Amino acid sequence: MSEKCIVLFSGGLDSTTVLAYALSQGYDVWPLTFLYGQRHEVEVAKSEKTLEKYGLTERRRIFRMDLSLYSKCSLTNSELEIPEYDPSHIPTTYVPARNIIFLSIATGYAETIGAKKIFIGVNSVDYSGYPDCRPEFIEAFNKTISVGTKQGCESKIEVVSPIMRMSKCEIIRLGTSLGVDYSLTHSCYDPTPEGLSCGVCDSCRLRLEGFRQAGLTDPVKYR
Amino acid sequence: MSEKCIVLFSGGLDSTTVLAYALSQGYDVWPLTFLYGQRHEVEVAKSEKTLEKYGLTERRRIFRMDLSLYSKCSLTNSELEIPEYDPSHIPTTYVPARNIIFLSIATGYAETIGAKKIFIGVNSVDYSGYPDCRPEFIEAFNKTISVGTKQGCESKIEVVSPIMRMSKCEIIRLGTSLGVDYSLTHSCYDPTPEGLSCGVCDSCRLRLEGFRQAGLTDPVKYR
Repeated sequence: MSEKCIVLFSGGLDSTTVLAYALSQGYDVWPLTFLYGQRHEVEVAKSEKTLEKYGLTERRRIFRMDLSLYSKCSLTNSELEIPEYDPSHIPTTYVPARNIIFLSIATGYAETIGAKKIFIGVNSVDYSGYPDCRPEFIEAFNKTISVGTKQGCESKIEVVSPIMRMSKCEIIRLGTSLGVDYSLTHSCYDPTPEGLSCGVCDSCRLRLEGFRQAGLTDPVKYR
Repeated sequence: MSEKCIVLFSGGLDSTTVLAYALSQGYDVWPLTFLYGQRHEVEVAKSEKTLEKYGLTERRRIFRMDLSLYSKCSLTNSELEIPEYDPSHIPTTYVPARNIIFLSIATGYAETIGAKKIFIGVNSVDYSGYPDCRPEFIEAFNKTISVGTKQGCESKIEVVSPIMRMSKCEIIRLGTSLGVDYSLTHSCYDPTPEGLSCGVCDSCRLRLEGFRQAGLTDPVKYR
């Protein structure tokens, strides 16, 4: 029987690539999706088709939570504008402590189902400067679960990010080689009601640049 | 203006003592309560009266989440029985990664409101053997937020547990000296529908023994 793993799966470009990667490594994959009032829930709707493709529709769990407590974040507070790309500071789309929260919940779920690995699609190369996407964060978090969970003490749960040190271009090349259908992924923070991407937010810019560098055309529709 | 802090406040004996302690230290206290489908939500209802006493009713935020994903935990799965006290192993009342989850959400909230400290009432002396109540867990978590959050990188958010190294008896003595009304607190994992405590679960046993050692009578009602 193959080893169970959890994949944090939003339906975005990065997490879809990581899902395909975990499957290619022979893992028994349990996708976990978070709905936290983000503007771009369209990505979750689109992600259904990716899960269908891999026969994982029934397996996926959706964890809902209301992060409206975090009123200064433009990703969950619709009264704030999504900023355009500016590499000089951490943007307001940063959801405070988001990956710590997601990984914490995933850790408890891993203990419950007996998974030893949690895959997350963070990377520290082409990213928006969020502090919880860096290798030192994943390392510190792994230390925390090794002392703070039952399973961590007895056996081991480990968070891994196979795309941590890849550029967006390399991620797209990896996914393409694994057969990922990027037309089913969504990255834009500020899509139109019909699900068209804006093309100017951080996430769109990084994505478009990645496809360009990879010599490929992004199959999603822009407004 | 006094410094803001968040207090993880369930309405139990420990967190109520910590709330009173933070107030006694002059902090501007923002209580945060989690509802996660635990059996003993009665503690949250009772906690209203403590908040009224301190004029904090409006200030408290309640964060709801559904941890039914964690099906092996007797505190959230009502089909499992609450075990009696057995010091030889981690009991099924252990909610996987619970304090990591709570502290993660509190960290994002601290970033949002500009609080520098998060008070939590964990302690490693008279406890149920949960790994996420130990000093090494709090230390590792603090390291994680120092590298994984915006605020952590720029200034500092710190989790503190003033009762970490106190016995239950010492906690009760501290709270009594601060004027805590323990009749408004609840500890039992398995209360009757009317809110009476069972007297035999881990939590009741530790509480009763603490009052006995302090030479005081527990004011809550047992069945």
